[in-house]
Formats: sequence, C-alpha cells, structure tokens
Amino acid sequence: RTPLALSSGWRRYCAAAATPTGDAVGEFRRRIRVAEVKGGEDQGAAWVGKELTVRGWVRTCRAQRTVTFVEVNDGSCLSNMQCVLTPETEGYGQIDSINTGASVLVEGVVASSQGVKQKVELKVSKIIVIGESDPTSFPIQKKRASREFLRTVAHLRPRTNTFGAVARVRNALAYATHKFFQDSGFIWVSSPIITASDCEGAGEQFYVTTLLSNSAEGGCLVNSIPSKDGRVDWSQDFFCKPAFLTVSGQLNGETYASALSDIYTFGPTFRAENSNTSRHLAEFWMIEPELAFADLNDDMACASAYLQYVVKYILENCKEDMDFFDTWVEKGIIDRLNNVAEKNFVQMSYSDAIKLLIGSNKKFEFPVKWGLDLQSEHERYITEVAFGGSPVIIRDYPKVCNAHFAVFNWFSKNLIIS
Amino acid sequence: RTPLALSSGWRRYCAAAATPTGDAVGEFRRRIRVAEVKGGEDQGAAWVGKELTVRGWVRTCRAQRTVTFVEVNDGSCLSNMQCVLTPETEGYGQIDSINTGASVLVEGVVASSQGVKQKVELKVSKIIVIGESDPTSFPIQKKRASREFLRTVAHLRPRTNTFGAVARVRNALAYATHKFFQDSGFIWVSSPIITASDCEGAGEQFYVTTLLSNSAEGGCLVNSIPSKDGRVDWSQDFFCKPAFLTVSGQLNGETYASALSDIYTFGPTFRAENSNTSRHLAEFWMIEPELAFADLNDDMACASAYLQYVVKYILENCKEDMDFFDTWVEKGIIDRLNNVAEKNFVQMSYSDAIKLLIGSNKKFEFPVKWGLDLQSEHERYITEVAFGGSPVIIRDYPKVCNAHFAVFNWFSKNLIIS
Repeated sequence: RTPLALSSGWRRYCAAAATPTGDAVGEFRRRIRVAEVKGGEDQGAAWVGKELTVRGWVRTCRAQRTVTFVEVNDGSCLSNMQCVLTPETEGYGQIDSINTGASVLVEGVVASSQGVKQKVELKVSKIIVIGESDPTSFPIQKKRASREFLRTVAHLRPRTNTFGAVARVRNALAYATHKFFQDSGFIWVSSPIITASDCEGAGEQFYVTTLLSNSAEGGCLVNSIPSKDGRVDWSQDFFCKPAFLTVSGQLNGETYASALSDIYTFGPTFRAENSNTSRHLAEFWMIEPELAFADLNDDMACASAYLQYVVKYILENCKEDMDFFDTWVEKGIIDRLNNVAEKNFVQMSYSDAIKLLIGSNKKFEFPVKWGLDLQSEHERYITEVAFGGSPVIIRDYPKVCNAHFAVFNWFSKNLIIS
Repeated sequence: RTPLALSSGWRRYCAAAATPTGDAVGEFRRRIRVAEVKGGEDQGAAWVGKELTVRGWVRTCRAQRTVTFVEVNDGSCLSNMQCVLTPETEGYGQIDSINTGASVLVEGVVASSQGVKQKVELKVSKIIVIGESDPTSFPIQKKRASREFLRTVAHLRPRTNTFGAVARVRNALAYATHKFFQDSGFIWVSSPIITASDCEGAGEQFYVTTLLSNSAEGGCLVNSIPSKDGRVDWSQDFFCKPAFLTVSGQLNGETYASALSDIYTFGPTFRAENSNTSRHLAEFWMIEPELAFADLNDDMACASAYLQYVVKYILENCKEDMDFFDTWVEKGIIDRLNNVAEKNFVQMSYSDAIKLLIGSNKKFEFPVKWGLDLQSEHERYITEVAFGGSPVIIRDYPKVCNAHFAVFNWFSKNLIIS
C-alpha cells in the first residue's frame, strides 16, 4: 500500500532546509478541516472557486451516468463534503474501491452546489484511496444501526453521526468547563485517583491491587494471594495497605481551596455500585468546585453562572450537532436548553416550595407534605408553571429527604470559612 | 464562631428581591484576588487610593510600636498583600489571634508602600479573624520546611510558596494544553480508565476489583474470595472478568482519530511498576495526541509547536512563580525554557547523530557506536554545542535501543493512514 504522500509544501520545505547534520522541524501542518469550510455563517460560499484538499472517510458513494457523488466526512463536523467525480478525475479508475468506510484524499475546487442539502461541493480533480473498505464486511452502512449493535463495533462507532456528535459536544462541554473556571480565577487541581480515603463514604469503592496478578496459567490461584492468619495480607500489596479508586476529589480539593482560595477538580471518579440506571456509572468525570470565603449564595450563583455558560457555549459552538440531537434523539432539547441559558435562575427554600405546591391547589399523583421528597411532577410544576420555564434551585432540603442529598450536595457542601 | 458575613451588596440584593415564592440567584461574586491587584505590569500602582477587601491566610505578623504589618496570602499569586494595622483599625483588639495560618478578612485602602519588597500595601480600616490558628501547634512557620516534613502535613502544604507555585504552574500547563489542541482543531477524548485491554503491554497494570471487599471485621478473609477449582472466579467480580487501570488511552484514541481526524487524550494513566525514580509514578496524567492522515514530520511539528506553546504560556502567565523556581529550586530553569520557547527545533536521524558525535572528535565518557543508546553527555553535546541550545529531536531510533522506546514513542506511533 502506498503511504500517504507528504503535502507538497512540506516536501519543498524539507528539500530547502536539508543539511547533513540536522533538518528544521516544519510548521505545524494545518490540514483544512471540513468544519473550517462549511462551518461558517455562509456554509462555505466564500470558498467557491478555491482549491481544497479534504481527507476523510467515505459515507456514501452514488454512481450516476456521468458523475459520481461521494460523501466524505472528516469528523470535524456532522456535515459531509459532497465530492463530485467524473471520468476525467485523476484516480477515477479506483472507483470500485470507493466504498463506505474507505479513507480517501480528494483534491479539487470548491463550487456552488445544485443540491438542496449543501451550499457548496467539491469538483474533484484527483482522488487517492488511502485505505480500502470491504463492502461485504464493513458493518456500518447507511441504514440506522441500534446503539446495542454499535457497541459490538466500538472501534468504528465514532464514525456514526450520533457518536461523532456526542464526541464533539462532550469535547465542547469539557473545554467550556475549563474556560469558565479559568476565566473566573479558579485553579484546576488534579486530585488523586488512587486513594486510601473513602471521602466521607460517598459511595462504594473499587479496590486497586496487585495482589491478584495472574500467577498461574489459567488464572489467579487463590492460595497464591498473600495472606496472614487467613486474611489478605495488605502489607504485601503495592501500596502496603488497601487502596481504592476515588469516589470524589473533595477532600483533596478542600485542602487546596484553603490555600489557593478558588479551585476546581475535573477528572474521573468511580462508584462500585451495581446499579444499572442512567444515573449510575462505574466511571464518570465529575466537576467539583471549592470556593473559599464563600457561602450558599455564592455557591448558587457560581453553579448558575457555570450552567448558563456551558449551555450557551454548546448552543453557539455545536449548532449542527445540537440540531441533530433535536431532530433525531430528543425533540425539544434546544428549547429546554435555551430556557436554561436565557432565563434567570430562581432559588427558594424547600419549605417555601412545599408551601407553593400546597397553595397551587393542583392535584398531584404523589402527596405533597413537608418531609417528603419532591417528585418529577412537583419539580415540573415549579419550573414550568410557577416560574415560567426558569431553572429553579431548591435549597435547605431537610435531612430526612436522603434521596436528594446527592443532587443538592453541590450547593451545600462548599462552605469553607476557616 | 461568627460565620463570614455576606458582602453588603448581596444583602441589599436579597432584601430587595425577596418574595414569598422565590428569590433571584445573585450574580457570581467576584472576590478581588491579590493577583488582580498586584499581578499587572504596574504591580498595583493603579489601585492606589482605592478601597479593597482581601480574604486570605496570614503568613507573618510583625508588631512594631505603632503599626503592625500582617502579610496576607490568598493563593492567587505568590506575593502576599502587606496589610498595615494601627490601633485605630476596627477589630485591632483581636491582634493576639493574628497568627501564622489564621484566615482573615481585611478591608482598607490601597496605598503606595515605603518598603522595597512591594509597590503597594493595604492600610487596613477593619480586620475580621475568620479562623484562628494556634501558634504553638500550626506546623508551617516562616522557616524553610523540607518536602519530607511537608508530606506529613499534606492538608496544609498547599499554603507554602513551593506547593502553591507548583499548583499554579501545573494549572497553567494543563489549561495551555487544552488551549493549544482546541485552537488547532483537535477534539478531547476521555478514554476509559477502567479497561480490559493492556494497550500493547505498555506497562504493569493494577487490578480493579470488588472481590476483596472487607467481608469480616479485621480484614478480608482469603476464603471469602469467590473461587472455582482453586482459582479466583472472575465471573463474580464487578465486571464479570478481570479489569485493570489503563496504562494508555492510545487504543481508544486511535478509534476516535480514525473518525474525527485529530484528537487528544489528557487524563490519568497508571503503572504498577515498583520503581522509585523520578521517571516512574504509579499515577500520572498523560497527553496522547493522535493525528489522522499524518506522518512523522507532522508529528514532530505538532510536538514542537505544542512544547513551545505551553512553555511560552507559563513563562508569560506564571512569571512570579517561575522566578521563584529559578531562585530557590533550579537555577537557570528560565534560560533553559527560553531556549525551548524561542529557538527553532532541529530534527535528525539517529544515524546522523552518531555520525555527528563521532565526527566531533570529542572525548566522551561513554562510547559512541551505532546501536548503542545516547547518554546524557551525548544529548547535551548535540543540543548545547552542535546546535547552540536548540531543542533537537532524534528520529529513526534503531529497535535495538530499547531504553529509548518510551521517550521517543510519542513521535513514532501516531501514523494513521487508513
């Protein structure tokens, strides 16, 4: 297989700079990404007439009598670049290799598109098939595939619209998180992942150990685990005592907040809870801000400002991906996020919320009584009816409502005044 | 103990906005940080005459006949705010509580300082001691403390100059890393931490398990570990098979690069190697960029641009902390980093490097011969003498030099062309 040729700029550079004893390192190549062409307000109109090289993966290939349309996606955005090939195109002889999943390099000139789906397309002068794809075995074809099936081809699912969009939005949320806290003067602290602390019993922990090393063909022999008086001998483990995956960076974060004032952690945390719901994961990334010299009002203000910032960020920077979710995954998600981004947050105490619900004289399925948890129907009434779509923070939950501890934890735990 | 009073602005806001059913969430409080006052080019001169409230921790307190100087640090920068108290200062009666480690709120007016150490100081009109500190037991006093000792007071060491500076520089390096890759169109991928893959045997792995749960008082009984035919029964573990802490996000990153073109991982990775050197850690954060449609030249260009970007970033944004390191921790570090940031990177093959060393006719302690590793003295000759301080990338290492695989891995492994 032919390796990918260096871009010609690079080749010129190397030829000019070559000396017997050392070459300059070139400039950081800026491959043009489809997002840079089609991502702007004009959807690429400014590129019409310009030369462009795109590298990516074939989504579909439709051969017509005189032209062949190849949709190429490079993952920089949801949109493909529609590439128009004719028999005059250099490399047209490889047309049988241009199957879904193949990786290609296409060179050509950007032109206005006659199609309704895109403003511009690429009139291809040259195509190189970099990696072929066997159409009889490539598992991701144009039809929709279930997420369960895609799980079985985890090495290829990032090439689907859904997983690509998730990756881009997740990336934007992570970067917006750093931007928000950095711009507000917070310092990121990477709290330890392996720990001997259980962080106030925030959740079940995984053990981290080298005691189980596979010491025999066929698996770890139980009687090869170091023991003393019938018990596991931790003194022979890697850290010479039991060690766990962290359930929270909070304790570490607090020591830094008590020195650097405002810090945040953003890293993976772990729970060994055998609960298969959408609210439980064995591994997840968590953000834990710790504010020194702050009170509950500061915490609520920080949380509100943060949420509005990141939501605005993805609505502005991931428009195409969010439209995709709104159309195919969850109708109405953009309207709901716009409410979060645009409306003022409201806060009230749990007791006032109970009063409001009782005073509403609305018939709820679940009872409303001080000391009971708020159910989804109650929360929806408060946000959607009582406050016209504004996000609402309920503070001062009574201790008896244990189920809500985790959800509201963030707002109540950050009071550091000494 | 009196809780910290709300800032007066907040109190007004709440009083005005209070309604029986819901309060507005306030603006995100912007506590003024010492870095915002003293961090600029003028070292605070523009603040002279302005009112300022500082919250932080007392570093030292020097009582003179008519004035008392209190150095307050809030962790936003290395510099303290020198606070000048007189008997007229409100709260002066608490002067006996103003010991090293106490947390305080000081209000006053910024004034030009007579001292040589700072441009400005705070003439304090009011001081509140938020948290006291017992001078007989607070472990961090003005004298230098060894890092070994500070390890025993890990909850307080972030308040030292060294650990504070490390935290701020580390934060800046992490943020600059994200900024560099995001600005270059890379997408951050959070590769899984718990994994069943050993990533091409990159290193010894930790087991992640729930089989060892302490099932008895006094520790885990070996015979309570689920077993089958004398072997550990992985089917009863959390993931129903052996699971490990990741040694590298590479395999996961490659699947995303083969769909999104340019990605990077930046997260914790783990090695269960029992090796206590400065080059081995059980837990460390690693950056793994994966470039699609790239070759070794692109990789070298990317690595060089990245290094120069982050080094420039900390030299510009952490000047005070870097000066501190240059003075107290490693003399000459700023000059060395300036070389990295300013000089062009050079690249040459291993074979050319051997030729260059042999041709130098210099007497080295270790032999120079094709097939042998380069030693520090050789690397120093190449960078410092042959290329006048430029950073040098040695490419195309022969496979026989195994010791260098890890160091140069980054430059050779990222070739993805299909």
